[in-house]
Amino acid sequence: MSDYPKSVTIHEVGPREGFQFEKQFTPTERKLELVHALAETGVRDIEVTSFVHAKWVPQMADAEEVSQGLRPVPGVQYSCLWLNDKGLERAAATGKYCLDGALKLGASPAFIKKNTNKTIEETIATFPSWIEVYKRFGVPVEQATTNAAWGCNFQGDIPQQWVLDRIAAIEKAILEHGYQMKRILLSDTMGWASPRQIKSLLGKVRNRWPEAQIRIHLHDTRGTGLANAVAALDMGVTEFDSAVGGLGGCPFAGHKAAAGNICTEDLVFMFEEMGIETGIDLDKMCECGRLAENVVGHELPGKLMHVSSLTRYRQAAAERDRAAAETAPAAA
Amino acid sequence: MSDYPKSVTIHEVGPREGFQFEKQFTPTERKLELVHALAETGVRDIEVTSFVHAKWVPQMADAEEVSQGLRPVPGVQYSCLWLNDKGLERAAATGKYCLDGALKLGASPAFIKKNTNKTIEETIATFPSWIEVYKRFGVPVEQATTNAAWGCNFQGDIPQQWVLDRIAAIEKAILEHGYQMKRILLSDTMGWASPRQIKSLLGKVRNRWPEAQIRIHLHDTRGTGLANAVAALDMGVTEFDSAVGGLGGCPFAGHKAAAGNICTEDLVFMFEEMGIETGIDLDKMCECGRLAENVVGHELPGKLMHVSSLTRYRQAAAERDRAAAETAPAAA
Repeated sequence: MSDYPKSVTIHEVGPREGFQFEKQFTPTERKLELVHALAETGVRDIEVTSFVHAKWVPQMADAEEVSQGLRPVPGVQYSCLWLNDKGLERAAATGKYCLDGALKLGASPAFIKKNTNKTIEETIATFPSWIEVYKRFGVPVEQATTNAAWGCNFQGDIPQQWVLDRIAAIEKAILEHGYQMKRILLSDTMGWASPRQIKSLLGKVRNRWPEAQIRIHLHDTRGTGLANAVAALDMGVTEFDSAVGGLGGCPFAGHKAAAGNICTEDLVFMFEEMGIETGIDLDKMCECGRLAENVVGHELPGKLMHVSSLTRYRQAAAERDRAAAETAPAAA
Repeated sequence: MSDYPKSVTIHEVGPREGFQFEKQFTPTERKLELVHALAETGVRDIEVTSFVHAKWVPQMADAEEVSQGLRPVPGVQYSCLWLNDKGLERAAATGKYCLDGALKLGASPAFIKKNTNKTIEETIATFPSWIEVYKRFGVPVEQATTNAAWGCNFQGDIPQQWVLDRIAAIEKAILEHGYQMKRILLSDTMGWASPRQIKSLLGKVRNRWPEAQIRIHLHDTRGTGLANAVAALDMGVTEFDSAVGGLGGCPFAGHKAAAGNICTEDLVFMFEEMGIETGIDLDKMCECGRLAENVVGHELPGKLMHVSSLTRYRQAAAERDRAAAETAPAAA
């Protein structure tokens, strides 16, 4: 009686999103404590760290140490972020990660310029060197990753055609090197999207690349995160990034102009209530949310971990009904 | 190219929801300060206070004083809450309010028992006395109000048939007294709903009472508030309650098992981004959110007021483009 999928896949990006955002350096062993707690929740993919220059993101200076400390957990893959072929080399060299084989080209020229001092064309020119590294490590190049797909604080609104053009540019490089573009990851990096825009852009992407698996990465900067997730679900998306506790930013801690990803446990709650399986133990994920607060040392925006899921209310109701049935007089 | 409505109506319930929830008594003049600031935002309905017994809700002991202090603002109606005919009498006696002509029957027997020590049947038996008061003040009895429509911490899950039965019981009383049931207000009082359940129940209500105007009152206890609002919008609802700043509870302040209504400015942001008019000035509403934090003395869960709407980014982008166009060489 519904077109909702039977299940969705949630990619936990909290450790990577969250720790880079904190002002303080989080000790390596505490990062690992959270990652390993997450690995026991049933989540199947955990984005652990970023291989970026320690000068720019000092919180990620221990990427190699964190990687070496990762404990293999059956059914769990670890992933990570990089922004250039050097970072990719470092990530691959650890031997710890499932590499996504992505070529990355942001939708916003201003944001690309700010982050990497490159133009769109200069970024496209780096693809062969990325592909060369992927090849060396035996990773098929099958993913297009485009951030700021719904808007950018530095660029403004992003025309939908730009997003299609970026994906097409990546696809061209992928095809030229004998691969197929199987996956598209779109990010609302700065929380510009609303449900209508989510549906509109995804419709156009789906129309042009009907076979590609679309994954979506949403920030809850302005409160529309879960509404946007449902809009994506309505458009057939079954792959969602989210961050435990809503890590990655806390508007209550005086951090400016940033808020975390949509919160994993809130997302899991919503999907499970909608009858969509996530494979994640909600109580364990809420515990991880509280652990994340403890690790970063401040409150996080996640809601569910501060209240309670519906389980205990339902259990209490069931017990009351059972007790009432037992004490009721037998039917004549 | 969309079935979305051109506009929606937002009922600001923050003062009523928020102040009753605070542990401290909020001074009357500060309550009025927020109400009057809200009255300048373009919102057309502000729920100001509750006429309930001061013994049970001491924060609302100044309901009459607040009412007398209300300044008329063109285009703004003030409304209020009451739970029995005595409260209704008090509210009507102030002469300050637009009375909704509602009969109220909650979906949850356990919650009704807890709140009023009455059964469903005993509550229905009070309707004639409500109607008598409405008649005396010339208010047509045209609304059914049902809370805990999606679940209850004390009852558990609420069968949809119960909600239909409650509305039908109210309609029966309304018709018997020569009125017509024109409006239905459904509340997710304890934040149990997810988008799928919102759509499912609203579909059944709409099916049975296709002509009634449905209004929805959502709490964001578990983060699904705005997603639920979009689900209601998808079902044709155009009347939404919300609270400035997300007043009515703050999970970050150690309050237990409660969270505020969906946040007005976040809701306005989302609707306006979706091309749906609210008539509300977003910047002014964000200022009211910050004022609400000042009045209650702690942070509130609203997101937008802690970051920024997209206006300034869009303005900066437009200025940059204009400057670039001016300095560009004329086309050959």
